Amino acid sequence: MTSSDKNTDNIISDGSYVLVVLNEHKRWVTKVESGKQFHCHKGFIEFDEVIGKPYGIRIFTSKSTAVSIYKPLQIDFLSKISHSSQIIYPKDAGLILLYGDIKPGSRVIETGTGSGGLTSILASYVRPNGHIYSYENREQAFKTSTNNIKKLGLNDAITLKLQDAIEGFDEEDVDAIVLDLASPEEIIPHAYSSLRSSGTVSIFIPTYNQIERTYHELKEYDFGDIICFETIKRELQLKTNAIRPQTRIIGHTGFLIFARKRTKMVQK
Amino acid sequence: MTSSDKNTDNIISDGSYVLVVLNEHKRWVTKVESGKQFHCHKGFIEFDEVIGKPYGIRIFTSKSTAVSIYKPLQIDFLSKISHSSQIIYPKDAGLILLYGDIKPGSRVIETGTGSGGLTSILASYVRPNGHIYSYENREQAFKTSTNNIKKLGLNDAITLKLQDAIEGFDEEDVDAIVLDLASPEEIIPHAYSSLRSSGTVSIFIPTYNQIERTYHELKEYDFGDIICFETIKRELQLKTNAIRPQTRIIGHTGFLIFARKRTKMVQK
Amino acid sequence: MTSSDKNTDNIISDGSYVLVVLNEHKRWVTKVESGKQFHCHKGFIEFDEVIGKPYGIRIFTSKSTAVSIYKPLQIDFLSKISHSSQIIYPKDAGLILLYGDIKPGSRVIETGTGSGGLTSILASYVRPNGHIYSYENREQAFKTSTNNIKKLGLNDAITLKLQDAIEGFDEEDVDAIVLDLASPEEIIPHAYSSLRSSGTVSIFIPTYNQIERTYHELKEYDFGDIICFETIKRELQLKTNAIRPQTRIIGHTGFLIFARKRTKMVQK
Amino acid sequence: MTSSDKNTDNIISDGSYVLVVLNEHKRWVTKVESGKQFHCHKGFIEFDEVIGKPYGIRIFTSKSTAVSIYKPLQIDFLSKISHSSQIIYPKDAGLILLYGDIKPGSRVIETGTGSGGLTSILASYVRPNGHIYSYENREQAFKTSTNNIKKLGLNDAITLKLQDAIEGFDEEDVDAIVLDLASPEEIIPHAYSSLRSSGTVSIFIPTYNQIERTYHELKEYDFGDIICFETIKRELQLKTNAIRPQTRIIGHTGFLIFARKRTKMVQK
Repeated sequence: MTSSDKNTDNIISDGSYVLVVLNEHKRWVTKVESGKQFHCHKGFIEFDEVIGKPYGIRIFTSKSTAVSIYKPLQIDFLSKISHSSQIIYPKDAGLILLYGDIKPGSRVIETGTGSGGLTSILASYVRPNGHIYSYENREQAFKTSTNNIKKLGLNDAITLKLQDAIEGFDEEDVDAIVLDLASPEEIIPHAYSSLRSSGTVSIFIPTYNQIERTYHELKEYDFGDIICFETIKRELQLKTNAIRPQTRIIGHTGFLIFARKRTKMVQK
Repeated sequence: MTSSDKNTDNIISDGSYVLVVLNEHKRWVTKVESGKQFHCHKGFIEFDEVIGKPYGIRIFTSKSTAVSIYKPLQIDFLSKISHSSQIIYPKDAGLILLYGDIKPGSRVIETGTGSGGLTSILASYVRPNGHIYSYENREQAFKTSTNNIKKLGLNDAITLKLQDAIEGFDEEDVDAIVLDLASPEEIIPHAYSSLRSSGTVSIFIPTYNQIERTYHELKEYDFGDIICFETIKRELQLKTNAIRPQTRIIGHTGFLIFARKRTKMVQK
Repeated sequence: MTSSDKNTDNIISDGSYVLVVLNEHKRWVTKVESGKQFHCHKGFIEFDEVIGKPYGIRIFTSKSTAVSIYKPLQIDFLSKISHSSQIIYPKDAGLILLYGDIKPGSRVIETGTGSGGLTSILASYVRPNGHIYSYENREQAFKTSTNNIKKLGLNDAITLKLQDAIEGFDEEDVDAIVLDLASPEEIIPHAYSSLRSSGTVSIFIPTYNQIERTYHELKEYDFGDIICFETIKRELQLKTNAIRPQTRIIGHTGFLIFARKRTKMVQK
Repeated sequence: MTSSDKNTDNIISDGSYVLVVLNEHKRWVTKVESGKQFHCHKGFIEFDEVIGKPYGIRIFTSKSTAVSIYKPLQIDFLSKISHSSQIIYPKDAGLILLYGDIKPGSRVIETGTGSGGLTSILASYVRPNGHIYSYENREQAFKTSTNNIKKLGLNDAITLKLQDAIEGFDEEDVDAIVLDLASPEEIIPHAYSSLRSSGTVSIFIPTYNQIERTYHELKEYDFGDIICFETIKRELQLKTNAIRPQTRIIGHTGFLIFARKRTKMVQK
């Protein structure tokens, strides 16, 4: 890919998604449509005024308020596609990429799909040669995620399955498995069976109670190098001469357990 | 890549790197060499006994202690290549990937290279089509990182430069810039100049004092969507009937600032 | 004090303050008045029904909702008397008691008084023989705190002064000084002058910027054993089979600096 | 107490305890003995040189290193008397004082005594009219704590009992009960029985597993207003132009549960 290709990529066109930022709290991912407008409480902008311009421009609304028009980051789409309460946070998705060693070329099983938020993050990092196989047993969630993944243009990297993980996975020798569902401990045997040796399992768990059950099942199935941790994200107030942590924060999202598949002991 | 390819990949061979795990605290990344041995205080293993076996096997040392032999994750290499005090933590690298939107295909400038730890993480996530241009002005660090990157087989995705970032970058229209050096505020003008519009800058900062200076410089250069946060990682003790956070932890690594390049205001 | 005295103390009477608890979030400190009622959105209770009963009883409102009627803890009064945004949190007040060594018998200077929240906590722990001298330069705050302290019956342990701390303190040889005002660094010289040797200064600071300024001034005035820390309070959700940290928390209240007065070096 | 009394109190005398501070990490509580010396790796000081001087002085050791000689805070004694792994931290003791409403005049039951660290803190805050009844079933701990409490001169405010809490408490109508022992859930019935109505129970718990069991027992015994939280203490590095949280910290001490005794429902 040459620099001039990049420049072409970087121009807003009809049908592009953009992130419109009014301020820290007011921000929207929206699709550019020629002849239409984007409306917020601070006025509107004509999409035709931004088509052909580079991402990153600032423009005034009809009420003379400046807004910035960015190319959405992959994580900007999370707020758009996840309307349910159960959303993955970027901080946790980043940990799953690194501790699960999910990277370009990885073949990954995920369950459950939910609205497809984590699926979309994983898919964007295994491309172009890797693949995500995502299992979901609730029909409504399957429909929502199918729709979301299509909008994001990630179909080629994702196979969505309306299938209950409790009945096992169709894939074998995958590099990594990600469990983000109510009873992960029940899926451990299937995870063991579908992973390649030395492959990783990454488990997202909201409550303490599940940690012990899941840990026991992982030991039972001969997973090794089992670790569990959480991260607390603390945003800072950026204000001249008054830098300080924010008063109100999200104090908990979930615990993460990581483990690696071992094979039978070599006897001496 | 087919499943059978994967299986071939998954066999330990002469020259492979492996992660040998004795327990939670005793673990080493080492290179397999036919005819040689791996030694620790719990005995040794003959590399010839593991060559041809799958990653993930367990084996007994000469003193009858079981060890696990894993395929190293990308982050397992960090402990091997970073002997300096200034190391990047996986939790922070994961945030830089997601909030910096660094993914397969991204062209990224990084400075400084240091021992190449963060460089190696970034490179492994932009492959096969992206590239990392990494600047370092200290000759010793340049040599160390050159050596490390070669060992990891990441040369094709990384260009290391023995060059001071204060004199500017050679690349244009890059997707993201990562600053992890003593005075990031001095590099902001060059970062602005080399980024494509709407591209991201990610800055790692250890002390409070630098936050304000860097924030002011970012505003001065018309970066938008500036956010700053840190994460605190809390590992848990996994012990039956006694699940609890660890007593001693790393309580601070650094603050992260993220911002996006904006272009001139469109006048109405 | 005998056990039977305690029992008399423990009976709700006309004029007593009570804490009415409907649930975790709905709770009120109120004064019992014979012939009157307490109203909330779940109905009302007649005060005459609780007069003569022990604290700790549960009773039904007119709409058949159970409420608990407790004797307020000292910290329960904080929510009643502090309507301003700048309130002290019990977690920080507890640290000031212990790291400031403020205990029964201590003579303490505090500034600023604010609405009297921290003043009331300190006073309740230095009684019966200690005393709090509290300085406030804003007339409105002085009136509010005077009113609050009177209601709480803590007048004998507190002297409120409508006086600017910048002009110095009237007291000498006090055991501890507590600074909770906008520019604590300006008061350090007066704090040094009014403390007994080896006495403590406790400083509450919301932003990073003030830490360095205050630290320098403390060193300048020969304070020793200077430490600075903060605590992050994490409340847990108590729900059967779903114990977990709360999602939304107060992530920051302020930093605390503690130091002790030293005297001139003894020359050998 | 007059100011001149305070001055007399503030003079180091034969038999006084002092806190000798060499630096942030090297500090010792020791007893002043005429004719003897205090030794550390940086030389010694003659106690006779400090007798008659005010607390807070600085003095040179025989090797010309400056040390500060402070009057110990109550919490400075914790490091002296607690040699066991199970120590109470000041941050948690402060929370127990405030959320348990333990203050001058309070009658309090505590179990277990351990080496007497928390006992000494509680006693110093209920004086002169309150009292601590502390239960311990291990003979060695009973002896250690008896010795420690005597040294600290807190005998008049504390009754130590070599008695197992599981067999119940001798006191009635106490204001507060503090549980810091292996199976607090087993003591809940006795705590309920010995508390005055509306009195508080404060429970220190190191692991998640115990939270749920204790919570259920508290509900079973009609305790109300049950809350659970922990605090994470983060110390800051105070260094000019490099203010930052410390890298290595104590990330977990324990969880605290607080509840209040309710009495039977008043029927309408």
